[in-house]
Amino acid sequence: MNDPTGLVDLRSDTVTRPTAAMRRAMAEAEVGDDVYDEDPTVRLLQERVADLFGFEAALFTPTGSMANVLAVAALVGPGEEVLCESRSHVLRAELGAHGALTGLTSRTWIHERGQLDLAAVQQMYAPDMGPFFVRTTAIAIENTHNFAGGTVIPIEDVRALRTWADEVGVGVHVDGARIWNAHVATGTPLRAYGAAADVMAVCLSKGLGAPIGSLLLASREQVEVARVRRKRMGGGMRQVGVLAAAGLHALDHHLERLAEDHEHARLLAEACGQDPALTETNIVVADVPDAPAVVAAAREEGVLVGAVGPTKLRMLTHLDVGRPEVERAAKVLGRLLS
Amino acid sequence: MNDPTGLVDLRSDTVTRPTAAMRRAMAEAEVGDDVYDEDPTVRLLQERVADLFGFEAALFTPTGSMANVLAVAALVGPGEEVLCESRSHVLRAELGAHGALTGLTSRTWIHERGQLDLAAVQQMYAPDMGPFFVRTTAIAIENTHNFAGGTVIPIEDVRALRTWADEVGVGVHVDGARIWNAHVATGTPLRAYGAAADVMAVCLSKGLGAPIGSLLLASREQVEVARVRRKRMGGGMRQVGVLAAAGLHALDHHLERLAEDHEHARLLAEACGQDPALTETNIVVADVPDAPAVVAAAREEGVLVGAVGPTKLRMLTHLDVGRPEVERAAKVLGRLLS
Amino acid sequence: MNDPTGLVDLRSDTVTRPTAAMRRAMAEAEVGDDVYDEDPTVRLLQERVADLFGFEAALFTPTGSMANVLAVAALVGPGEEVLCESRSHVLRAELGAHGALTGLTSRTWIHERGQLDLAAVQQMYAPDMGPFFVRTTAIAIENTHNFAGGTVIPIEDVRALRTWADEVGVGVHVDGARIWNAHVATGTPLRAYGAAADVMAVCLSKGLGAPIGSLLLASREQVEVARVRRKRMGGGMRQVGVLAAAGLHALDHHLERLAEDHEHARLLAEACGQDPALTETNIVVADVPDAPAVVAAAREEGVLVGAVGPTKLRMLTHLDVGRPEVERAAKVLGRLLS
Amino acid sequence: MNDPTGLVDLRSDTVTRPTAAMRRAMAEAEVGDDVYDEDPTVRLLQERVADLFGFEAALFTPTGSMANVLAVAALVGPGEEVLCESRSHVLRAELGAHGALTGLTSRTWIHERGQLDLAAVQQMYAPDMGPFFVRTTAIAIENTHNFAGGTVIPIEDVRALRTWADEVGVGVHVDGARIWNAHVATGTPLRAYGAAADVMAVCLSKGLGAPIGSLLLASREQVEVARVRRKRMGGGMRQVGVLAAAGLHALDHHLERLAEDHEHARLLAEACGQDPALTETNIVVADVPDAPAVVAAAREEGVLVGAVGPTKLRMLTHLDVGRPEVERAAKVLGRLLS
Repeated sequence: MNDPTGLVDLRSDTVTRPTAAMRRAMAEAEVGDDVYDEDPTVRLLQERVADLFGFEAALFTPTGSMANVLAVAALVGPGEEVLCESRSHVLRAELGAHGALTGLTSRTWIHERGQLDLAAVQQMYAPDMGPFFVRTTAIAIENTHNFAGGTVIPIEDVRALRTWADEVGVGVHVDGARIWNAHVATGTPLRAYGAAADVMAVCLSKGLGAPIGSLLLASREQVEVARVRRKRMGGGMRQVGVLAAAGLHALDHHLERLAEDHEHARLLAEACGQDPALTETNIVVADVPDAPAVVAAAREEGVLVGAVGPTKLRMLTHLDVGRPEVERAAKVLGRLLS
Repeated sequence: MNDPTGLVDLRSDTVTRPTAAMRRAMAEAEVGDDVYDEDPTVRLLQERVADLFGFEAALFTPTGSMANVLAVAALVGPGEEVLCESRSHVLRAELGAHGALTGLTSRTWIHERGQLDLAAVQQMYAPDMGPFFVRTTAIAIENTHNFAGGTVIPIEDVRALRTWADEVGVGVHVDGARIWNAHVATGTPLRAYGAAADVMAVCLSKGLGAPIGSLLLASREQVEVARVRRKRMGGGMRQVGVLAAAGLHALDHHLERLAEDHEHARLLAEACGQDPALTETNIVVADVPDAPAVVAAAREEGVLVGAVGPTKLRMLTHLDVGRPEVERAAKVLGRLLS
Repeated sequence: MNDPTGLVDLRSDTVTRPTAAMRRAMAEAEVGDDVYDEDPTVRLLQERVADLFGFEAALFTPTGSMANVLAVAALVGPGEEVLCESRSHVLRAELGAHGALTGLTSRTWIHERGQLDLAAVQQMYAPDMGPFFVRTTAIAIENTHNFAGGTVIPIEDVRALRTWADEVGVGVHVDGARIWNAHVATGTPLRAYGAAADVMAVCLSKGLGAPIGSLLLASREQVEVARVRRKRMGGGMRQVGVLAAAGLHALDHHLERLAEDHEHARLLAEACGQDPALTETNIVVADVPDAPAVVAAAREEGVLVGAVGPTKLRMLTHLDVGRPEVERAAKVLGRLLS
Repeated sequence: MNDPTGLVDLRSDTVTRPTAAMRRAMAEAEVGDDVYDEDPTVRLLQERVADLFGFEAALFTPTGSMANVLAVAALVGPGEEVLCESRSHVLRAELGAHGALTGLTSRTWIHERGQLDLAAVQQMYAPDMGPFFVRTTAIAIENTHNFAGGTVIPIEDVRALRTWADEVGVGVHVDGARIWNAHVATGTPLRAYGAAADVMAVCLSKGLGAPIGSLLLASREQVEVARVRRKRMGGGMRQVGVLAAAGLHALDHHLERLAEDHEHARLLAEACGQDPALTETNIVVADVPDAPAVVAAAREEGVLVGAVGPTKLRMLTHLDVGRPEVERAAKVLGRLLS
C-alpha cells in the first residue's frame, strides 16, 4: 500500500501516488519546451498512445477535462450540438466547460447503466435542416461510464454507432478516461475502440496511476487546432516530459494489473451485498439505507468511501489499495452494512 | 384571407400580416425612446402583459428567441444547467444561443408529445454537490409544445413541477410562445400558468398576429438585469411603441379567436387521416409516406405546408387563413393523401 | 417640432418620433416573413442601402449594436483581435457584446477627436506570427465619431487605411451609424465610404429619424453567415416591412435635411461659447464648470441636454428640433453659461 | 550548462530544464489529490508564495496564462473591461483567452517601454455610468514587461496606480510572471509589489527554472471561486506535489541568482551594440538590419535567438546559460552584427 496515512482510500482512482519506480522515471526524464513541441518524452508518449489506439496524433493535456473539451470542440462548434448519456462526465463533472467555453448545445438520453441507446440517438439526431435549426455534429459516449458504476459499453454497440454515424455523417467522441479498464475487463483491443471513434480522450492519472495527464487522440490536423485551443485554455505547459515519463512508465507497468482492481472491486461489491456481476470494472456502487452514515462510520475505521446521493455508496479500487487493504475495507463495510 | 399572393400558407403561424385595424393602431401609436424606458406604449404593453400573467414586470423583445434566452439566463448562469424536453424550441430552434451566448449546459428528457416527464426530471436533477459538479438551476417547459405538434402540458402537471421545484429550490421557465393557444384550448387562466413559473416568455407574433415582438415576464429585479443583457444582445430598440401598439391591438382582438384556428386545425387533421383528438391546438403533424413529395404537390395547388422529417407533414392554422382557405387546403391535402 | 411634451430634447438623435408621413408609409407597407427572407419591403431596403454604398448585400437588424457585432464578427473570430479608437461605440456603448458574445480581443489607440491614428494602428498591428500570438484581423473606425463629438474622419484618411489594410491583408469595418452626417457635412459620396470598407453598419434611427433599424453591409456570403448569427442573437424578426418602410421613407425625405441639424448644432456651440468650427456635424460637446448643474437648470427650463463627465455637456440636434426650438435652447444655455 | 544539445538557447527563459537537485526534490515530494485540496506540497507552496507577497491565499495553475485569466476574471466580468498596455502578455500571448473564455472587453494605452501611463489610464477610465456603458473594473500591468524588453515598472508608479485605483474603486492586477526579476533588479521587496495589487500571477517556470507552474495570488474568497474556474478550464490536476516541489526548490535556490542573468543580458546587449542601460533585467531586444538573417546565421553557430519583427532580435538569459555560454553567444552575435 502506497498511502502513508494508513487509510484505505476508496473515494476515487485519482488519488494514487506515484510509485518509487515511477518517480525515478520522472526524475530521469529527458525534457524540452513543449510549447515549442520540443519535449522528447512528451513526443514519445504522444506517438505511443496515438499508435496504441490507431490514431494519427495525440496531444498531452493537464487533465481529462481538458482532453474532453478539446475532443468535443474538434467535432462540435458553437451553436452545434453533441448528444450524450445523461450522467456523462462531459456534462456532469467538467463544470459546464463545453457550454461555457466552447458554446455548444447538449442533449441527452437517459440510461441507468450509462449505455449507448442508439434508438434514442437516432430519434434525437438533427441533421442539417438549413439555417434555422441546431445541427447534431457529434455523439459522445463514455467507456467505461464513471457515474453509472464503471460499466462497459460493448464494442459491438460502439461499432453499431460508428456504422450509423458514418451513414449520416456525424462525429463520434469516446471519453476513454477509463478505456484501459474496459480493455482489460473485456479483452477488446485498444485499436478496436480507436477504430470506432473520430476523437478520444484517455487518462493517465486514474487506473494507470500517473500523477497528472491525459491525452487527446485525433487526426494530425485536429491536433494542430487543439494545440492552439489548449494554449488558450491555459494548458500549454513547458517541460512536460517529467509528467510524460510517468505516463510511459504507467503504460509499461500498470495496465495489465487493472485486472486486480476489478477483482478487488467484486470483493467489495460482495461485501456490500451487491450482485458482483454488476461490478464490471473497478467502480462499485452499493445501495444502502443511509449512505452518509456509512461514509462517516467507515472513516472512523480508516476506510474512505464516497456517497453519491442519500442511499448510494461509491468505491473505486486502484493501484494504492492492495489485497490486504481491500480485505480490510470489505470486512469494515460488511460489518457496517449487516 | 390576408395573403395577397392567393396562397394558403400553413407553414407557420408566424407568417401573418398585420390587419388594417392593427396597422392603424401602429400608425397612431404614441412613442418615445425605449432605451431610456420612455416609450409610453411599450410601457403600457409591458404592464398589461405582466398583469395578465400575474408577474411583477415584463420586457419587450424583438423575438421569442431573445425572450427565451433572457428568461433562461435569469435562472441559469454559465456552468449551470437547465433541463428540458428534447425537442424544445430553446434547444432546437434558437441556433444554440443558450450555450453560445449564455454558456450554460443543457440536459434533456425525451417525450413523444413534448410533455413534462417529472420522474425523468427528478432522476436527472443535480442539486448543489459542491464545486465539482454542474448544478441544475432551472427546468424549462414549452406550452404549447411546438415541435411535438402544439400539444398542451396540463396545468396539473405544471403545478406538480412547481411544487417539486419549490421543494428542491430550482427555477421554472415556461416558454409560452403559444401559451395563448393552451389558454384558449383548455380554459386555464393565464394567471394559473404565470403562478407556476418563475419566468416566462410569451410571443405576440405567432397566433396573436402582431408583426414583431415577444415579452419576457419576470420579477422587477430580473427585468432590470435582462434589460442590460437585451442591450448587449442588440435588442435595445428605440421607438418601440409602433410595435407595442400592434401587440395591444392583438390582445384586444385576436386572443379569443384562436379557438377558430384550433377548429381549423382539427379539420386539416381529419383531411390528412389523422385522429383529430391528437390535434390539441393550431398545429397539425401528419404521418405520410413521402412528406417532401406532398409538400411539392400541395404547393402546385397553392397550399404551402412544411415537412419535418421524411414522413411527417406539419401545418399551422392562423389569423390569415379563414374557413374557406382551410377547406380548400383540406380538399387538396385529402386528395393528395388518399 | 415633433415632441408632444413641449420639451426641447437634445439628449440624443435617437429620440426622434416618426412623422405623420413616415407613419403612413409604415401603415401601408407590404410585408412578409423575414425569417424566411420573404418580406418584400425589407428586401427592397436592403438592396437599396447596399447599392447606395456599393456593397453586394445588406441585412436589416433591430439595432446598430447588433449590426456592429455582426459586422465585426464577420472579420474577427474568437481569439483574434480588432483595433479601434479608445472611445469607439463598439467598445464603449454596446455593453461588451464583442467580447462577451463573439469572444474577440480588442486593443485601442487614443485620439482626442476620435480620428484614425494610422501610425498607432501600424505600431499595434499583429500579423500572423504562428500559433502563439493573437492576430489582428480587423481595424474598426467610427464615422462620424459619436463620443468624440460627431467628428468626421476625412475620406483621405479612410483611404490611407484601406491601402495599408490591403497591403497587410487585414479587414476594415466602418461603424457608420452617422455616416449620413459625414456624407452631408463633407459631400463625400456614400460609395466612397463603402469602397474603403470590407463591412459597414449604418443606422436608420439616428439622424434619419426612423423609429427602429440598422443595416449590416457586407458581401453576399458574409450576409448569409450574419443571418444565422442574427437569429442566434435574437434578431430574426418576422414582418419587418413595417420598419423597413420607415427606413425607405427616411432615405427619401430625411437625408439632405441633416445639413439643418449641423447648422443648428453650430448655433448651440456658439451659444455655449465653443468654437463652432469644432462642431462638424450634429453633436456638440461643451466644456462647462459644472455639467450636472447645467443639465438640471436647463431641464427646469424645458431643455434636455446630457452630461458626459463632470465638466462636459453633450447635445445632439435632430429631426424633432426645428429652428425655433434650437433658438430657444440656445437662449437658455447662453444665459445659464454666461 | 544544462542543455544536452550543446546549443546556447536564448529564445526564452521558459526553456530551462530542471537541475539534478530539483529533480531529486520532485522525486521525493509528498503528494495527494489536489482536486480535493489534499496535496501537502502544493499547499505548502501556495502558502509560502502567498506569504512572500502578503496575500491571503494562492492557487497553483499549470501555466501563467491560466493564472492570468483567473486573476483578471476575479476582477472583471463579462461585459466589463480591463485596461492594459498595448503589448501586454494578457492581450498578446494568451491567444485571446480573456475575451474568448471570460468575455471581457479590453482597451489599451501604448507605451514603447511597457510602462504604466497613469494619465492615459485616467483618461480612458470609465466609471459606472448606468446600464448603457461598459465599466472599467480593473487595470492590469505587467512587471517586468516581457514584450517591451524585460522593463521594470518602478514601485513608485505602481503605488501611484494603487492610490488612484483606491480612490475610484477599481481593481489592480499585476502580471508578475517575471516579478522575481524586478525584485532582484531593484531590491524592491516582493511584499511591496503584493501590497499594490488586488490579484497577481507569478510564474515558476521562467527565470526560476521550474518545469511547470504558476500561481494566482488573491483573497481567500477569490481563490475559492478561481478553483472552480480552474477546474472548468481543465486545470484541476491531481498529484501536483511533484511540480510544487520544483517550485519550492526554485524559491530556495534560484531566486537570488537572477542577478547573474541580468548581468549576462547586459553583456549580450553590449555585444549587439545596444545601450546596456536599456536592458534592465534578463531580456535583450536589439535593433538589427535583418533579424531573420541573424537568427539563421546564429543558429548555424549554435546560438538560438528570436526575431520579433523584421528588424528586432530578442534574447533571454536564464538558468541554463552560464557565463561561458553567454560569452560564446556574445562573440557570435558581435561578429554577425559588426
